[in-house]
Amino acid sequence: MKLIQLNATVTASNDHDAQALRERMQAAGTLLVNVMSSPGSGKTTLLSRIIRDLPAVKIGVMEADIESDVDARRMEALGARSIQVHTSGMCHMDAGMTAAAWEAMESKELELIFLENVGNLICPAEYDTGASKNIMLLSVPEGDDKPLKYPLMFQKSDALVITKTDTLPYFNFDLEKCRERVLKLNPKLRIFPVSAKTGEGMRELEQWIKACLFRASDI
Amino acid sequence: MKLIQLNATVTASNDHDAQALRERMQAAGTLLVNVMSSPGSGKTTLLSRIIRDLPAVKIGVMEADIESDVDARRMEALGARSIQVHTSGMCHMDAGMTAAAWEAMESKELELIFLENVGNLICPAEYDTGASKNIMLLSVPEGDDKPLKYPLMFQKSDALVITKTDTLPYFNFDLEKCRERVLKLNPKLRIFPVSAKTGEGMRELEQWIKACLFRASDI
Repeated sequence: MKLIQLNATVTASNDHDAQALRERMQAAGTLLVNVMSSPGSGKTTLLSRIIRDLPAVKIGVMEADIESDVDARRMEALGARSIQVHTSGMCHMDAGMTAAAWEAMESKELELIFLENVGNLICPAEYDTGASKNIMLLSVPEGDDKPLKYPLMFQKSDALVITKTDTLPYFNFDLEKCRERVLKLNPKLRIFPVSAKTGEGMRELEQWIKACLFRASDI
Repeated sequence: MKLIQLNATVTASNDHDAQALRERMQAAGTLLVNVMSSPGSGKTTLLSRIIRDLPAVKIGVMEADIESDVDARRMEALGARSIQVHTSGMCHMDAGMTAAAWEAMESKELELIFLENVGNLICPAEYDTGASKNIMLLSVPEGDDKPLKYPLMFQKSDALVITKTDTLPYFNFDLEKCRERVLKLNPKLRIFPVSAKTGEGMRELEQWIKACLFRASDI
């Protein structure tokens, strides 16, 4: 596991840098998936489960955090190529930081890299990282009103993973109301209710991810 | 309920503005408590409970959100003086925005104003709002590792409220380990484990808040 400390690049050129990175990664055959959510929504647990469930896919993980390397160590323990990115206090990743992390990983053979963005429902949605797919998590304990308060991330995502569905009996979370709210913000959003703990719903999400990979043959 | 749309003020002068606001509010006898946490940690539910539990205290609430006015409406329904602040996409409140919200509330007679900051575990910790007390919430479903990843907010807070303790049986959250981690970051931090749902632990938190009020007589 490597650790790099990065500073934000100039925002004005971020869209340009993001598009360039997206094209380079696609040319290398590596799908970059940007994973966003609040702190504690279950990003690391979800990625751990996917890595275990898809042993035939060459997966790497970029763990972006302000401090600590606990998440990258968890990924490493699962045998995934991982890099810990420290964002120098920044509340999001941008395209320049993501490109530097990809270089530092020295792993052009990977088919799929997850960028586990900083836990934050606001700022990461404002910066294109260069990922080909953006997914966000909303956990059941956070509540079904979050699309009303933090609409941008729901609008910018290709898929919404509703996590911790095994705790639905203990919280006042209306799955149908949530679905309605997010589809009003983003009619194309794919929605996957899952429990990484029990495995419920994981197959549908993993099938979708596999279908996004840049390769002709089936897995 | 009023709604105002605010833009961030210049950061360089924020510390100066914050100190000035703090002194003005203290002179007016109004305690400003800045409430910070991730989205979905239960800020609004906690404040609703406190308002109901302390009818003898004149309480107001500033609800800061990027969009929507659902929280301010909830406060209004409880009879609390409330104002909805829209932050123009900003991920935090600063002192200038808080001062403008206080002016707009036109309520110099309040003893206690809660500023429900934008749901974000990172950026709000970097801006002094002018509050005399800063409290943060960490909910049980978020996990006991959050102090390792987002240390600044734990360092900047006077009190940590661990919320949703009624869900402890369903999550792998070690209260003692969490206590150890946060006290290492901030030995003076007051810690209140509570369930706003069952009322467990609320009395201790409310006693502490009452002791912080700027008045001589007991409530």
